[in-house]
Amino acid sequence: MRIAVDAMGGDHAPAATVEGAVEACSQNSQLSVILVGNETAIASELKKHKYSASQLRVKHASQTVEMDDSPMSALRRKKDSSIRIATDLLKSDDADGMVSAGNSGVVMATALLVLGKLSGVERPAIATVMPSLKGHFILIDAGANVDCKPVHLFQFGLMGEAYSRYIFNIENPKVGMLSIGEEDAKGNELTKESFKLLKNAGLNFIGNVEGRHIFEGDADVVVCDGFVGNIALKIAEGFAETTAKMLKREIVEKTAGEIGSDFLKKALSNFQKKTDYSEYGGAPLLGLNKPCIISHGRSTSKAIKNAVILAGMLHSKGILQIISKECKEGLAGRETVFIEE
Amino acid sequence: MRIAVDAMGGDHAPAATVEGAVEACSQNSQLSVILVGNETAIASELKKHKYSASQLRVKHASQTVEMDDSPMSALRRKKDSSIRIATDLLKSDDADGMVSAGNSGVVMATALLVLGKLSGVERPAIATVMPSLKGHFILIDAGANVDCKPVHLFQFGLMGEAYSRYIFNIENPKVGMLSIGEEDAKGNELTKESFKLLKNAGLNFIGNVEGRHIFEGDADVVVCDGFVGNIALKIAEGFAETTAKMLKREIVEKTAGEIGSDFLKKALSNFQKKTDYSEYGGAPLLGLNKPCIISHGRSTSKAIKNAVILAGMLHSKGILQIISKECKEGLAGRETVFIEE
Repeated sequence: MRIAVDAMGGDHAPAATVEGAVEACSQNSQLSVILVGNETAIASELKKHKYSASQLRVKHASQTVEMDDSPMSALRRKKDSSIRIATDLLKSDDADGMVSAGNSGVVMATALLVLGKLSGVERPAIATVMPSLKGHFILIDAGANVDCKPVHLFQFGLMGEAYSRYIFNIENPKVGMLSIGEEDAKGNELTKESFKLLKNAGLNFIGNVEGRHIFEGDADVVVCDGFVGNIALKIAEGFAETTAKMLKREIVEKTAGEIGSDFLKKALSNFQKKTDYSEYGGAPLLGLNKPCIISHGRSTSKAIKNAVILAGMLHSKGILQIISKECKEGLAGRETVFIEE
Repeated sequence: MRIAVDAMGGDHAPAATVEGAVEACSQNSQLSVILVGNETAIASELKKHKYSASQLRVKHASQTVEMDDSPMSALRRKKDSSIRIATDLLKSDDADGMVSAGNSGVVMATALLVLGKLSGVERPAIATVMPSLKGHFILIDAGANVDCKPVHLFQFGLMGEAYSRYIFNIENPKVGMLSIGEEDAKGNELTKESFKLLKNAGLNFIGNVEGRHIFEGDADVVVCDGFVGNIALKIAEGFAETTAKMLKREIVEKTAGEIGSDFLKKALSNFQKKTDYSEYGGAPLLGLNKPCIISHGRSTSKAIKNAVILAGMLHSKGILQIISKECKEGLAGRETVFIEE
């Protein structure tokens, strides 16, 4: 599996991107990485590591997309950016997947324009992993589509289920729709119509799930439109950060260095690790012709490593072919026996 | 101020509702409460307390709305429920406001049908208080309207601002719109159109705010449609509960009763208090002809007490008259000088 990595993307690039690529290759000998970006900067980072030359090569890109570049201007004026060159490598079949921790709006727009959609898929969607008491669940769409139709949410359900089943090895993933009450009739116009489609899809559809229950792990896949999903994701992220700050304040006020304080800091840091979704590597934009992983801007080398491995898995397991088939033909042909509701 | 309290509503009714009403009256001699519900059950609770008979009276209701009653069936078949009788007291001007911790869908539907909307208001909305690092902020709409038009979000901004200004005494409340990015152009069709209206309203409008920043206290009022708002609220609530559970698990695993454990439990409980929005009493359904406070199903007596006081304040400060005027005439007539963006 040949994975193109946007070496210039993210707050800690190129140090974290290069280190992450090196680590992914050393962990899996089947992987090779093309580091795309400023060749001088990449070479200088590569010097710090031991790696197999057969697994890592560099592809120069003269431009870098900034975090405040709009998708439109990047597409027009930065045709030699690391994001664009990486995407072009997928298009020309010189790579099997890509990873970028850069400007996510630009990555999405470029991938959609250059790679195009999978046959049968109406709208690609971001599938993000979130923590729950039982482990984790997939939230789809986490921000690619702000205005959706029922057929889109229906396909998000199919795509999220395939991702959960084949990448996270969940046997018969429970699919729920994010809504404001658990009764079938609760929701807005969009979710009520989407509910009917999902109910009859042949999925293990458990109906509506509420925001307060998703972290308990009721569903393995939580479906919503990208506006709601992005807000849900950021509320959770913001709340985790605020929680940590409030607890720290509580500790400082109440202990002033007494016994227990170090201990609490340790517990907090373990907790933050569990809720830090960048630990999962990144979120695939499912529904494109090739695997494209959008990593957090704050990605560490570990996150990049995991994202490269994820891109490789999406390719080697043929998830996109499965998604395309299911979106065109439905689930009727599947061998798996689904649990009746 | 005469406040009707649905004595039968909530998980801890009638004990918590009666105790809360007694406490509110003892705290504010201007308040009087009409406890609505089963008179035998209420009388038996009242025996446990000392109270001034001039401040508390009982109004019998032969029916109780259950949590699984639909608004439609409750409206049709439970015309002698505590929720309905309490609302009727407002309609006949025998009470100035009401509080219910019962089935919130039924409370909303009953209040809307019986009391009707304030002149000038298109859609009543729930204004909920949420915690932030700077104190708290108002989220409006937290669940009354699942499908909204731009004019609704615009009015939510006006109503939330008045609530923040006159009840929480924020001098020039910062109003933000919940969206998926801070740039003006970020959002879905609804928020983009609503943005234009809010920008030109004469409010201290700070533009879009992201889910991850609202808990930092960037905005005093956060505007969104009721579907998004309810999900945001429940995600935060669910995340707070999950955080507490995960941290507790972390403590048990790592300490097994060592020093620090009691201490951490204390810090956690303080934190939970800060994030428990039921501590704020309840959320008004703003835009009705009279103050109607929807309290959490798990309301304690303290929450009911605070809700009764809040209903009294909404009445005595004339917030509804202000809202009606502003929704009809805009803010042009206001004396306050607004900060230019």
